[in-house]
This record gives sequence, structure tokens and C-alpha cells, in this order.
Amino acid sequence: MSHIETAIKMTLDRWYGSVASLDKMLNVLTDEQLQKETAPGKNRGIYLLGHLVAVHDDMLTLLDLGEKQHPQLTEPFIKLADKVATELPAVAELRDFWTKQNALLREKFDQLTTEQWFEKHTAVSAEDFAKEPHRNKLNIIISRTSHLQYHTGQIALLK
Amino acid sequence: MSHIETAIKMTLDRWYGSVASLDKMLNVLTDEQLQKETAPGKNRGIYLLGHLVAVHDDMLTLLDLGEKQHPQLTEPFIKLADKVATELPAVAELRDFWTKQNALLREKFDQLTTEQWFEKHTAVSAEDFAKEPHRNKLNIIISRTSHLQYHTGQIALLK
Repeated sequence: MSHIETAIKMTLDRWYGSVASLDKMLNVLTDEQLQKETAPGKNRGIYLLGHLVAVHDDMLTLLDLGEKQHPQLTEPFIKLADKVATELPAVAELRDFWTKQNALLREKFDQLTTEQWFEKHTAVSAEDFAKEPHRNKLNIIISRTSHLQYHTGQIALLK
Repeated sequence: MSHIETAIKMTLDRWYGSVASLDKMLNVLTDEQLQKETAPGKNRGIYLLGHLVAVHDDMLTLLDLGEKQHPQLTEPFIKLADKVATELPAVAELRDFWTKQNALLREKFDQLTTEQWFEKHTAVSAEDFAKEPHRNKLNIIISRTSHLQYHTGQIALLK
């Protein structure tokens, strides 16, 4: 395995490890617990779960791997803060989205070659990318793993 | 810049970005706020800060970059849970450790070459490393960045 293949493997392993870690947590948290605030006055578990699904949904377009699956989640879980949207999907529905999304993302990621991971993502122009080659697809995985861990630490407080 | 240099840069940028993000948070949190629990019955800010300094201190030995600077923090902040140790350093002292540690780690990381980032870290045997080349020094940065983000998400709740 070349260094570059090793680097891609490490990055994807950390993503999958982070997904598995939240997955394990979600399996022990009840729907009722997820309806609670992570700390007094802070985001609820249901909001963070919906937020993660919505943000990960964007990865499909950022990585040029297809259309968003849940465009309806952008408004309540990204644009609006918690407790602002008048209606949210049920926790059970979000759990289902989460599980199916992880399988879909894995399937899509598996299709990318080493070279493709270092291609530009769709939110950067070709001109900027020429100057900043780190704004590639692999970097989307790196930044989204950080984001996932950040909110996983908060969801952990519901246990 | 080669792909492999880009991959190392992305990994280190995410580490430094994560450190900067907690740093910014610590600058707005008072010592008093850091003495509070992140959520009812959960770890206090002071414990998480000490925990991060203790865990990052271990990176020096894991990466073969020198001796631990704060061995006295392992017991109260890694081995023991929060509110178990009878005495903890003051928040001001931990803030100072945190700041100096980040400068020291940067200085040490700067010394590592591309090839060295892909060498084994000190907690894996040469035999295991031959089979699992991803257990290298760069992977320590990847895993510690995840860990840092996880606890940063919790410290954020103190604001």
C-alpha cells in the first residue's frame, strides 16, 4: 500500500469509526432521550441528529456523487436554530434516514479512486483549486469527521 | 505539492484548526464557567481542559518527539473520572499549560518529514506495523483531532 493509499484509508477509517461511534450511541438512547436538550437551553438530540443528516446529505453534492436525498431537512436543521421550525420529522424517521444515508455514502465513497479523492470538490472554483489543492474531496471527509465528532460529544451527554 | 504532502497538510491544518477553535472558546469562557459541569452530572470544563492537555502530552512520546511535560496530569485527568481527584491544578495553570503545549507541539511537528509521518508510532510493534502501516504517526494526529473535537463540542455548552 502506498503512502497515499494509506492516507486515504486513515481518513475514511476515521469517518467510518466516527459514524459507528454515534451509531452505537443512538442505539442506546431512546427517542425520548433524544427529545431532550444536551444541556440546559442548548440544542436537543433530535435537532443534532437532523443537523448531521442534513450536513452529510450535502456531501453527496460536494463530492459530485449525486443529488441530495433530503433537501427538506436543510431549512429546519441547518438554516434554522433548534426550536424554531414549527414541525420536525419524528426521531424514528431521522434514525432511518441516518442509517440509510451511512450505507449510501459508503457505497458512493467506495467508487472514488485515489486520484479522484484529490480532485476539487464542487464548492471551489477551478481557479481557486489550482492555488489551493487541499480543497479537494478528501478534505470534505476530514472536515465533516471533525463536525460529526463535535456534535457526537454533545449527544453523548444525553446518556 | 504532491498528493502526499497535501494529505499531510490537510491533516495538520485540521489539527491546528481544532486547537484554534477550542482556544477561541477558552478565551471567552471565564475560570468560573470552566468550573461548571458541561451538562447536569457530567464532566466539568476544568476536567475536560486538563484531560485534553494530559492526552496531548502523550502525543510527544507516541510520536517519539520527547518526554511528557506534565506526567502529574495523567492520574487526575486520564486515570480518574471528574470529581474523584482530591486536588486539581487551578484553571489558570491549565490554561497556561494548554497555550505552551500548543506552541511546543507545533514546533515538534514542524520537524517531522513526510517520510517520518508515515513511520510507526511508539505504541505499535514493528511486527504489527508491518501488517498495519496505517498505525503511523500521522494517524495519531487524525485520532487526537477527533478526540479534541468531541470534547470541544462539550466545552461549547458552557457558553
